[in-house]
Amino acid sequence: MALVNENYLKLKAGYLFPEIGRRVRAFAEANPLARVIRLGIGDVTRPLPPAVIKAFHEAVEDLAGEKTFMGYGPEQGYGFLIDTIIEKAYNPLGVQLKGSELFISDGSKCDTANILDIFALGNVVAIGDPVYPVYNDTNVMIGRTGEADELGYYKGLVYMPCTEENGFTPDFPRHKVDIIYLCFPNNPTGAVATSEQLRGWVNYALKTDAVIFFDAAYEAFITDPAIPHSIYEIEGAKRCAIEFRSFSKTAGFTGVRCALTVVPEELVARTISGEAVQLNNLWNRRQSTKFNGVSYPVQKAAAAVYSGEGWKQTREIIDYYMENARIIRDGLASAGLTVYGGVNAPYIWLKTPQGLASWDFFDKLLNECHVVGTPGSGFGPSGEGFFRLSAFANRENVIEAVERIRGNLK
Amino acid sequence: MALVNENYLKLKAGYLFPEIGRRVRAFAEANPLARVIRLGIGDVTRPLPPAVIKAFHEAVEDLAGEKTFMGYGPEQGYGFLIDTIIEKAYNPLGVQLKGSELFISDGSKCDTANILDIFALGNVVAIGDPVYPVYNDTNVMIGRTGEADELGYYKGLVYMPCTEENGFTPDFPRHKVDIIYLCFPNNPTGAVATSEQLRGWVNYALKTDAVIFFDAAYEAFITDPAIPHSIYEIEGAKRCAIEFRSFSKTAGFTGVRCALTVVPEELVARTISGEAVQLNNLWNRRQSTKFNGVSYPVQKAAAAVYSGEGWKQTREIIDYYMENARIIRDGLASAGLTVYGGVNAPYIWLKTPQGLASWDFFDKLLNECHVVGTPGSGFGPSGEGFFRLSAFANRENVIEAVERIRGNLK
Repeated sequence: MALVNENYLKLKAGYLFPEIGRRVRAFAEANPLARVIRLGIGDVTRPLPPAVIKAFHEAVEDLAGEKTFMGYGPEQGYGFLIDTIIEKAYNPLGVQLKGSELFISDGSKCDTANILDIFALGNVVAIGDPVYPVYNDTNVMIGRTGEADELGYYKGLVYMPCTEENGFTPDFPRHKVDIIYLCFPNNPTGAVATSEQLRGWVNYALKTDAVIFFDAAYEAFITDPAIPHSIYEIEGAKRCAIEFRSFSKTAGFTGVRCALTVVPEELVARTISGEAVQLNNLWNRRQSTKFNGVSYPVQKAAAAVYSGEGWKQTREIIDYYMENARIIRDGLASAGLTVYGGVNAPYIWLKTPQGLASWDFFDKLLNECHVVGTPGSGFGPSGEGFFRLSAFANRENVIEAVERIRGNLK
Repeated sequence: MALVNENYLKLKAGYLFPEIGRRVRAFAEANPLARVIRLGIGDVTRPLPPAVIKAFHEAVEDLAGEKTFMGYGPEQGYGFLIDTIIEKAYNPLGVQLKGSELFISDGSKCDTANILDIFALGNVVAIGDPVYPVYNDTNVMIGRTGEADELGYYKGLVYMPCTEENGFTPDFPRHKVDIIYLCFPNNPTGAVATSEQLRGWVNYALKTDAVIFFDAAYEAFITDPAIPHSIYEIEGAKRCAIEFRSFSKTAGFTGVRCALTVVPEELVARTISGEAVQLNNLWNRRQSTKFNGVSYPVQKAAAAVYSGEGWKQTREIIDYYMENARIIRDGLASAGLTVYGGVNAPYIWLKTPQGLASWDFFDKLLNECHVVGTPGSGFGPSGEGFFRLSAFANRENVIEAVERIRGNLK
């Protein structure tokens, strides 16, 4: 009799976005003339830059030619893309990496989920709260947790609250942990980590023999030159951290699918008997056995992001979103709301007025302003009383949404 | 202290293809004038058909437009592709499926590996021998096995030998099992299963409450109308089987990446307490949590495979490879070799002459004919004494390879 993985049954229903959809539909039916503006989901809206489109077309054309056709590529990604990323995205930060330390994939969601494969189930894991739900759910699915309590905390995980008091940058875990998820610039809070804060985490991990999963999916939105883009800008990080990066938000690739994971060769974890094992070897084995590489034209398009023209055009799109973020942040602040994020990050994290619960504010914003955002409580218990707005939208919608909030929010 | 998943350390080194590469390089260095013909790796060589290229370009162009840009798609795949596959690939077989039963992915390698996520570790698993190594290795990695014995059999897996005696179609497992991998047309043996044989497996699975993982990656190469393309052509299969299909070999997508998995809604497995759980729900949860969908232009290109022109052009390429298979099979048979496969399948499985070990025949073929194939023993102990040649090659190379074997093999 085939048995299911019962850990899946511990998962709470994927409640957040379906529930948002349900409430928006109900509102739209009751108010057919209202034009609803959606600043909820963190999905890009701008078309791909011309230089990227050109490279994408050229690579498709390669597949049409007898001599230029490409079959299976390396599971780890093509050297042309790996070398480009090292040279254009890491070397300027003062970070040197070997080609064998980078793994191209089809998404950071996949990588941050799959990385758990190479670690023992017995590791104690610390995650932020609020948090990108994938970190939470994948640990449940793999069997690392017990059931969730009434707040939504799963037994067996160590949660690190990110609150107004700590500036949404978590304190070190209260328990000894083996794996620590960090995400900066943060989804959902928009918080960033200074060099000093990251140095603290790296030293903490080195001291306690923990591994950091560093999710840098939003690093391209950092404009302050003092804020690190990569954890490897911190001395010692190669001995304790795996870094995840993505083309999704950086270059509008949410529908195109390309990301990368860095597993430095110096990074080891242990067997139960204490023997050191290179995580790079294990991840390489995982990827070559369970993955077959990213689509060739997609990798060519991704490499073009870092060409001269490509990067100039990509930066313009990032600047566009960051101007959206500034408009939202300033507009809401001038409306008397308390706002966080939106600087060096594409998400604005606002404190609900009058201590409203996140979902109550959701309803209020929808009913009074016809604007959709994401309730902070959907990202974890510490998100209660907060609300996420996304800068990934078209300018005219952003301006109108802010005007409506300023004019109509009672 | 972070601990590694020690199951990875049980894996034997990825020996087969690196060792082939090493021997071919050594030969080429010693014989710089020899022109080596490679019929080893099962990778396609023909360019994508014009209709597929056209759709691919159009979808890339969509990403360039303000109004046509596509961000995140459904994790399960776009309706336009799912509906096309049901209508063009399943309905003509008499198989009716719902859209929610198909999941588009970036490869059957990923899917046949990841499907293990939704099953309990305690299930007893049966796999063929010889076999596509991913089935074996992923069960080791997930922790279902002990160490390998000297032959390469992992303790805890039930192996089903595929031999000359049983026509390379395995007998039912000797032990009670919960999960059974079947692959028809088979890699590496090229064996196919008749309706009667598949009916036997379906009835066996239904009777023993087992789930079949049916890998149909090579179904497009079936030309005999009596051979089933899908396990769902067999009554009752929706209650016991998950089917994997791929565009890789069907349409030359090895470098483009698109596949699909069918999990029927009727298919259930159990909790330990005996409760039935829909596997479709679990796989949907797995995919939406750990995967972010296939690249939009890739899905558009895949849909074009089944357009009128696209399918005509795709069939021509399949016919081209199958003519290669015929040339290899007939040529080797007329050279006095015993050959299997190569009919309804792109792989030729030949018995080594004079009872040579697979690797000895590899060396002989390389030295005497300058032709590279794959030693059967690399796919499992029962592959010893056999050898795989692939029809995925250019015609002139195939003809010359066969001539060399006929003329030079001593």
